[in-house]
Amino acid sequence: MNSSEATPNDAQTINMGGHGVPVGVGTEAAELMAQLPPLEEVPAAPKRSAAEEARTILAANATGALATLTAEGDPWASIVNYGVLADGSPVFSLSTLALHGRNLQRDQRASLAVSETVPPARDPADSGRVTVAGVAEEPTGDRLEEARLVYEAAIASAAIFGGFADFTWWVLRVERVRWVGGFGRMDSVGPKSFAAAEADPVAPSTPGAIAHLNADHADALLLIAQTLGGHTDAEKATCVGADRYGLDLDLVTPRGRTGARVGFEETVREPDGLRAATVAMVGRARELSR
Amino acid sequence: MNSSEATPNDAQTINMGGHGVPVGVGTEAAELMAQLPPLEEVPAAPKRSAAEEARTILAANATGALATLTAEGDPWASIVNYGVLADGSPVFSLSTLALHGRNLQRDQRASLAVSETVPPARDPADSGRVTVAGVAEEPTGDRLEEARLVYEAAIASAAIFGGFADFTWWVLRVERVRWVGGFGRMDSVGPKSFAAAEADPVAPSTPGAIAHLNADHADALLLIAQTLGGHTDAEKATCVGADRYGLDLDLVTPRGRTGARVGFEETVREPDGLRAATVAMVGRARELSR
Repeated sequence: MNSSEATPNDAQTINMGGHGVPVGVGTEAAELMAQLPPLEEVPAAPKRSAAEEARTILAANATGALATLTAEGDPWASIVNYGVLADGSPVFSLSTLALHGRNLQRDQRASLAVSETVPPARDPADSGRVTVAGVAEEPTGDRLEEARLVYEAAIASAAIFGGFADFTWWVLRVERVRWVGGFGRMDSVGPKSFAAAEADPVAPSTPGAIAHLNADHADALLLIAQTLGGHTDAEKATCVGADRYGLDLDLVTPRGRTGARVGFEETVREPDGLRAATVAMVGRARELSR
Repeated sequence: MNSSEATPNDAQTINMGGHGVPVGVGTEAAELMAQLPPLEEVPAAPKRSAAEEARTILAANATGALATLTAEGDPWASIVNYGVLADGSPVFSLSTLALHGRNLQRDQRASLAVSETVPPARDPADSGRVTVAGVAEEPTGDRLEEARLVYEAAIASAAIFGGFADFTWWVLRVERVRWVGGFGRMDSVGPKSFAAAEADPVAPSTPGAIAHLNADHADALLLIAQTLGGHTDAEKATCVGADRYGLDLDLVTPRGRTGARVGFEETVREPDGLRAATVAMVGRARELSR
C-alpha cells in the first residue's frame, strides 16, 4: 500500500473526478442530469467536502464489506460490522476462526467499502459509497479502549461477541479514500483530510426533516428557490437533500426541471440544529421577497 | 485462486461451520440461541442447503462489494451493482476509468460479498451474507447476451450506462463460496453445488406472507407448532421465516421461548406457491389435532 496522497494509478481517476463532471458517462446521460442556471445570480452555496461525505457515510452505517488477501494473495470480500474512531479509522472485531480474521493475521493490508442506505425508490447506482484502504493494526492501550467503545456503540451484538477469546480487535489505518456520491459526483481524499474531517452531525435527522419540509412547508421551499436559489420562475420546489451546509431542491420551472442548491447562513454544529437553520433560511427568503 | 473445492486454508472454517454449531461463540451466547426439543417427536423439517442460501441471497439483491487487487497487489473493496447468470455467476459492468475496472483489466482475480437486506429491527450481525470468489472473464457470444439481459433486469440504470464504450462486461467464474446465515449458521459450498443450486423462488414474497400469517392466522400458526412442530405446550407462535421448504416459528412455551421449524409436504416450485403450501400445512395440522 502506497501511503502517498495519490499514487500514479490514481491520477486518472482523480483528474476525471471533479464534482459535477460525470465520469465515464457520455452525452445522453449527462443531459439527463443537466442543471439549469438560476435566472438571478446567487452566491455559490457551500457543500460538504469529499472528506466530509466519506466520513458521513462511514458514521451513518455499521455494516460494510472488507477486502483482505487470502494465503494465495487472492482478494476476498466479506461482510463485516464496524465502528469508527474519532480520526475516522474503522474498527473491526474479527474471529480468528473466520477466513477474513485469518487473512488479516497473515497480511494486514485491507480495504473497507460502505454504501449509503438507499431508499427503495432510489436507483442504487445513484447512491453514496466510500472505500477506505490501508493497513490493519491491533490497537493497544487507550486506542483499544476507544475501539471497544465505538464498536459497541455501533453494533448491538458486540457486547455479546466482543469478549470471546478468538475475536481480535483491528483498527484500519486509512491511507487511501475514494468517495462516490452518485452519478458524476466522486473524488479521492488524502488520509490527512480524511482524519481531520467531521461526519455531518445532522445526517441522522435529515430524512425526517426532508419529509416534514415537503409535507408542511412547500410554499416556503418555493420561496427559497425563487429568492435564495435565484430561480425566479420556479413553480414547484421539493426538498431532496439536507445537510449541515444547506438544502438540495428539485425544481419545476417553465424552462424544465432542475436541481438547485441553497446554503444556510451558518454551518449547523449540533445534531438537532437543522430546524433552526431552515427557519432562519425561510426568514431570509421572506425578507428578499419583500 | 485455487479452484479445488476446499483449499488447506479453508479446512478449519469448513470443519467448524456445521449448521447449528455457533462458530467462535462461547457458552453465554450459545445459550441465548438455545432451541428447546419438541415434546413429541416430529420428522426433521427440510431446509435450504447452503448452496441454495447463497444463490437466494445473490438473487435477492443487486448491489454488493467487489474485492479486486490494485497494481501494488493491495486488496480494494468497492460497491458494485450486479446481475446473476443462470449458473449463479455474477455479472458486472465496470468503467475502465474506475479503479476496480482498471484492477480487473490487470488481474482478473475477484470476490463479491453480498449481504441480505436486514430489516431495521434485526441485528445486522445475525443476517445472511455470502462471498463468492473466482476469476472474472469477459463474456462473448451468447454468454455476453445473457450477461446483458440479467444485468439490465437487475439494475434500473443499466440501460443508460451499459452502452458506453468505457464500460466492460465481466462475468465472475465462481470457484469458492462461503455462506453465513447468521449466528452459528455457515458453510462453504463447492463451485459445482453452487452452479447447480436454485435461488428460492418464493424469497421475494416471504416478507408479505410472514406479515399476513402473523396478522391474520395466529391461531393456525399455534396449531401448526403444537402438532407438526411437536411443541404440544406452545402458547404463542410467531412466523419469523418462510421459504420453499417450510416455516420458521418463534414459540412461547411454559419451558421458555424457542424456535421451531416445520416443513411443507411438497417443495414449493413457483414464486406464488407459498400461500397454497401454508394452506395445505394448516390442513395437515387440523387433521392431526382431531
